Amino acid sequence: MRPSGRNLDEMRDIVIETGVTRHAEGSCLIRCGGTHVLCTATLEERVPPFLKNSGLGWVTAEYGMLPRATHTRMRREAALGKQSGRTLEIQRLIGRSLRAGIDRSALGERQITVDCDVIQADGGTRCASITGGWVALRLAINKLMKAGDVTSDPMLDHIAAVSCGIYAGQPVLDLDYVEDSDAGTDSNFVMTGGGALVEVQASAEGSAFSRAQFDEMYALAERGIATLVAAQKAAVG
Amino acid sequence: MRPSGRNLDEMRDIVIETGVTRHAEGSCLIRCGGTHVLCTATLEERVPPFLKNSGLGWVTAEYGMLPRATHTRMRREAALGKQSGRTLEIQRLIGRSLRAGIDRSALGERQITVDCDVIQADGGTRCASITGGWVALRLAINKLMKAGDVTSDPMLDHIAAVSCGIYAGQPVLDLDYVEDSDAGTDSNFVMTGGGALVEVQASAEGSAFSRAQFDEMYALAERGIATLVAAQKAAVG
Amino acid sequence: MRPSGRNLDEMRDIVIETGVTRHAEGSCLIRCGGTHVLCTATLEERVPPFLKNSGLGWVTAEYGMLPRATHTRMRREAALGKQSGRTLEIQRLIGRSLRAGIDRSALGERQITVDCDVIQADGGTRCASITGGWVALRLAINKLMKAGDVTSDPMLDHIAAVSCGIYAGQPVLDLDYVEDSDAGTDSNFVMTGGGALVEVQASAEGSAFSRAQFDEMYALAERGIATLVAAQKAAVG
Amino acid sequence: MRPSGRNLDEMRDIVIETGVTRHAEGSCLIRCGGTHVLCTATLEERVPPFLKNSGLGWVTAEYGMLPRATHTRMRREAALGKQSGRTLEIQRLIGRSLRAGIDRSALGERQITVDCDVIQADGGTRCASITGGWVALRLAINKLMKAGDVTSDPMLDHIAAVSCGIYAGQPVLDLDYVEDSDAGTDSNFVMTGGGALVEVQASAEGSAFSRAQFDEMYALAERGIATLVAAQKAAVG
Amino acid sequence: MRPSGRNLDEMRDIVIETGVTRHAEGSCLIRCGGTHVLCTATLEERVPPFLKNSGLGWVTAEYGMLPRATHTRMRREAALGKQSGRTLEIQRLIGRSLRAGIDRSALGERQITVDCDVIQADGGTRCASITGGWVALRLAINKLMKAGDVTSDPMLDHIAAVSCGIYAGQPVLDLDYVEDSDAGTDSNFVMTGGGALVEVQASAEGSAFSRAQFDEMYALAERGIATLVAAQKAAVG
Amino acid sequence: MRPSGRNLDEMRDIVIETGVTRHAEGSCLIRCGGTHVLCTATLEERVPPFLKNSGLGWVTAEYGMLPRATHTRMRREAALGKQSGRTLEIQRLIGRSLRAGIDRSALGERQITVDCDVIQADGGTRCASITGGWVALRLAINKLMKAGDVTSDPMLDHIAAVSCGIYAGQPVLDLDYVEDSDAGTDSNFVMTGGGALVEVQASAEGSAFSRAQFDEMYALAERGIATLVAAQKAAVG
Repeated sequence: MRPSGRNLDEMRDIVIETGVTRHAEGSCLIRCGGTHVLCTATLEERVPPFLKNSGLGWVTAEYGMLPRATHTRMRREAALGKQSGRTLEIQRLIGRSLRAGIDRSALGERQITVDCDVIQADGGTRCASITGGWVALRLAINKLMKAGDVTSDPMLDHIAAVSCGIYAGQPVLDLDYVEDSDAGTDSNFVMTGGGALVEVQASAEGSAFSRAQFDEMYALAERGIATLVAAQKAAVG
Repeated sequence: MRPSGRNLDEMRDIVIETGVTRHAEGSCLIRCGGTHVLCTATLEERVPPFLKNSGLGWVTAEYGMLPRATHTRMRREAALGKQSGRTLEIQRLIGRSLRAGIDRSALGERQITVDCDVIQADGGTRCASITGGWVALRLAINKLMKAGDVTSDPMLDHIAAVSCGIYAGQPVLDLDYVEDSDAGTDSNFVMTGGGALVEVQASAEGSAFSRAQFDEMYALAERGIATLVAAQKAAVG
Repeated sequence: MRPSGRNLDEMRDIVIETGVTRHAEGSCLIRCGGTHVLCTATLEERVPPFLKNSGLGWVTAEYGMLPRATHTRMRREAALGKQSGRTLEIQRLIGRSLRAGIDRSALGERQITVDCDVIQADGGTRCASITGGWVALRLAINKLMKAGDVTSDPMLDHIAAVSCGIYAGQPVLDLDYVEDSDAGTDSNFVMTGGGALVEVQASAEGSAFSRAQFDEMYALAERGIATLVAAQKAAVG
Repeated sequence: MRPSGRNLDEMRDIVIETGVTRHAEGSCLIRCGGTHVLCTATLEERVPPFLKNSGLGWVTAEYGMLPRATHTRMRREAALGKQSGRTLEIQRLIGRSLRAGIDRSALGERQITVDCDVIQADGGTRCASITGGWVALRLAINKLMKAGDVTSDPMLDHIAAVSCGIYAGQPVLDLDYVEDSDAGTDSNFVMTGGGALVEVQASAEGSAFSRAQFDEMYALAERGIATLVAAQKAAVG
Repeated sequence: MRPSGRNLDEMRDIVIETGVTRHAEGSCLIRCGGTHVLCTATLEERVPPFLKNSGLGWVTAEYGMLPRATHTRMRREAALGKQSGRTLEIQRLIGRSLRAGIDRSALGERQITVDCDVIQADGGTRCASITGGWVALRLAINKLMKAGDVTSDPMLDHIAAVSCGIYAGQPVLDLDYVEDSDAGTDSNFVMTGGGALVEVQASAEGSAFSRAQFDEMYALAERGIATLVAAQKAAVG
Repeated sequence: MRPSGRNLDEMRDIVIETGVTRHAEGSCLIRCGGTHVLCTATLEERVPPFLKNSGLGWVTAEYGMLPRATHTRMRREAALGKQSGRTLEIQRLIGRSLRAGIDRSALGERQITVDCDVIQADGGTRCASITGGWVALRLAINKLMKAGDVTSDPMLDHIAAVSCGIYAGQPVLDLDYVEDSDAGTDSNFVMTGGGALVEVQASAEGSAFSRAQFDEMYALAERGIATLVAAQKAAVG
């Protein structure tokens, strides 16, 4: 019944390739089916002004799509002269989600910027960015620990994200673009490796949804997150 | 235990004054405690290009804060030359929420723009904007119906929004600014008059939250929405 | 002969309500007939760079209109990404006018920003902003004096503003929107409580005007300013 | 007593050179003492959208300063990405002033854009722009008439502008930069060749000014305008 | 003597992988040593306004770098709100170069946009963009020909580009980042498969260079172009 | 055969008038036939941040065109809110070219900004800007040397620029606008007084060009540069 032939609770294949760019302190290319996102983590020994002398570090994120990551070409945001509301909303979500997995005091006064650039889009780019962004962050912090620059691990737990939706009246896990375009309800769940909630966003695209539908999506998300966390573990060794 | 002395499940006083500006097709000033938002609905006999000849109408929203709506003066977005990510995210949420309560086919090819301008802020401005924006929208559509320009009511149900949070370890309803600044988790629930979900956004500000905490916030939100819908009914007569 | 039925030298009703927002150091809502402007004064213990260590204070102003303050909705300047020439011109005028009533040395090295936001427009918004802006400024400075932060009153005199025009060949006082749209000449007079001139701006919208016409407008303006100054006195008690 | 040694009512030397650029339909370089402005008039057979099918023409103006027209280099507005409030205010004044001298019906549905670019600044650039802009406009319209494209002359009268001020307590005519920087009051008078008023702008830079001072500036301005109109006549032959 | 140990006339390894993104009509990832550029060609059945009804097609290019393509993170142009002068200069060069290899009449009234996004930078990104951009363009046009939408091949010849420089006093081929940073002279040669010149840009970074040095760089470039054209042939089969 | 009747190797008349604006440390108006550029050099006792405490000076350039410098009026870049890619590319070229003639260590930690503003355009504006910009720079540095602020002359040699092209199949020197619009190939050569190369930019506008054609343009350019350097020498005495 799903256009891809997947079961209702079946994720797309996940492939996380690390070390894909030579300059970044941490990097990976995450492929969730046809959605491919390049994630890099940049470490800088400075913090934003509001954290000067606070002893706390900062993790932030930026998100972009290559113009032809999509079915039809989108105009380049740099050429338009501004980032869209959608872009800003997504990168704020990625940043908040990753910060929820960090002990900023253990990180110390340094900043890590996670860039998530979508090379190819097929639905779920924000979730792939969070899941892959966590891997890039983990690798950058590993480097920091290996160098002895931090003494205790600032990472509290895994952070991963997955989308669910009500498609053709049925709750489904990990929507691809075709499903996402038609779904009556679209939700994103960001969770820790331990299963706690970090962010929940559910939105009625067409008609309002019931508590029961929400709960079914929630249950699917828990399964999806477990799969993603396993893939993260495999990737970072 | 709440700074305001309210009970955990106690809303702030809600006052909705309608017809507050002479030009708009619908308007109200909503006061949720110290949060005051002026909402106007503008009706235009045109639709955005992507809806030309679709037979469908459009409802959209814009959000702004007066520079001194807040404790310290914020820079004017018009002077800065761009709307912040926060502003864009909020106005996208208001627009989506209000559209969920509209039968766009019954509305016909016309656009209603709901402007929500925060005169004074004390937490929960996006929720007050949705709740008050619905009132302005209702009044504009009443005008359209009275003029015979639409034959069946395009409004499907009430739409209202309320925030909840985990404050000092306790789930609380309708956060004010002091609580919001300190809350470990912050959530916004947008629901219909019938109790269906339109949008759920829950975010761990400090540490991740459990399913049980989410459920408690959900229960509080249901009560708050009922109060808000009653206030809307009183306002629009 | 005036659309409103007013006499040639008759002002609209003026209502100045103070203390309308809890955060600002001074605030008022001024209503000149159908023109309603919310004025807030923000006090900051800093000055612009060019005044550092000069011993002088600064008073500046910003002006905005809510999108539906007018008959048809205007696009939001924050969304357009810039303030219009008209907006910039008006806020420069408000700032210059209010500074003319201030002893900047007595104020000391601090800045007061007066925000004038038009809630509803019916002609004469810049004049109402100056008149109401002065009230907000007075209240903020009262607070400063009460706290003992300034020892002698930095306010030299009242500052108020009124428009005049040649409408249907006749000089009239305090133009409303309908008159303003048709007036052959439009002028704004900013004066002190003592009757001295601070700013005069007269502009031929259609055809040039004579010295005699200018003098008649001037005489009307003197009367209007006296009324406005009385209203200011009543407001600030 | 004036830094330049001029009498209180003495203008600076005025030189208007026409035909200074080969492409523009009308052009001149106006030198008012050390203030040099290049004025060009561009004729286009189109009008702004709001005048389509109105039978009326349009005259508009743009103003700029070369970065090193001034004592110290100013940042280039094109590089800054926006025109300053001062620039916008000046070009609006030039446009309004020149339109006051035009019968837009006789001009027919065409637009003339007058560009005023300050090559060297020594006070009074907006007045020189209006006076020189009128010459460029006259020459462009002459061309239109010679070609038979308009049948009756759309120009109603000369338009010229001069500044006055209260300098060292004395009313003076045609302020240069040194005087302008110190003047307690600064005013600009735009008049027709027949002596009618088009625009008056007077502004207290330091302290408020009296009606008597205003009248003295007015009398000086009348003299100055006569001199400028004579120079315009000589220039356009 | 070269930091990489290459001979003076030795290119870096070139790998061109085609079909790397599912949506674009043509795409490749070109790797010239450590410089990796993703090139996509987007075909649209429309032309810019200046070509409407001309019978001619258009080829244009856009260029971007991912923020962490470089040693230290560069600020994202979309976030800065504008493309740098360097970016604009490079994308204009790519567009001009690719157009030189196209018979725009044979292409017909359609537009192809070539996006070149640098994933990893190690010198020579503009040359890699041109060489890879040509491959993406070739593949998109192949698709057009296969569909029968164009009858004769609009591509006139191969277009490829290579950099040369004077490094440590010696002319060298295909500069990497370390060489580029130190080179006294930097040049880019764009040529056709037949060896004709399309663009030459040579620039003295430190001191001026002689005709003899220019000729040596030219000779090196001819060799490099031959290698690149061979790689293009292999890639497009 | 050239539209202007010039010989293939004939330059347009060059007139360089110095000291044309009273404020700039160095200035000239250069006229190359119908192309007129006003060049000013501004000296500031500061350097960009990246040169602080380096002991090195900086020379940079900005370029602009008055809106009606061209046949039809171009939109003002300050009003558009950004400089075009063409403008940025040209001012980068002028800056690089002039820096190639400067010993930045001898200049010391100060910055000279050369502004090149095109008053009238008839082809070759970037070349005229470089040639005239050098004169303005020379005059500013003369002033610095006369004041004893630098002890040895920081100028290494003359820098001048000329365009060549293939017009109607023939290599020609110093293209005017009519030729430039039609030329198959367009090139700009920037050279020192001693004949060394500083910048070469050659571009196939229509079809690719041969090495032989490039060499012919080069030979023409050498002659043109000699003429320009002689004109510079005459101008700076």
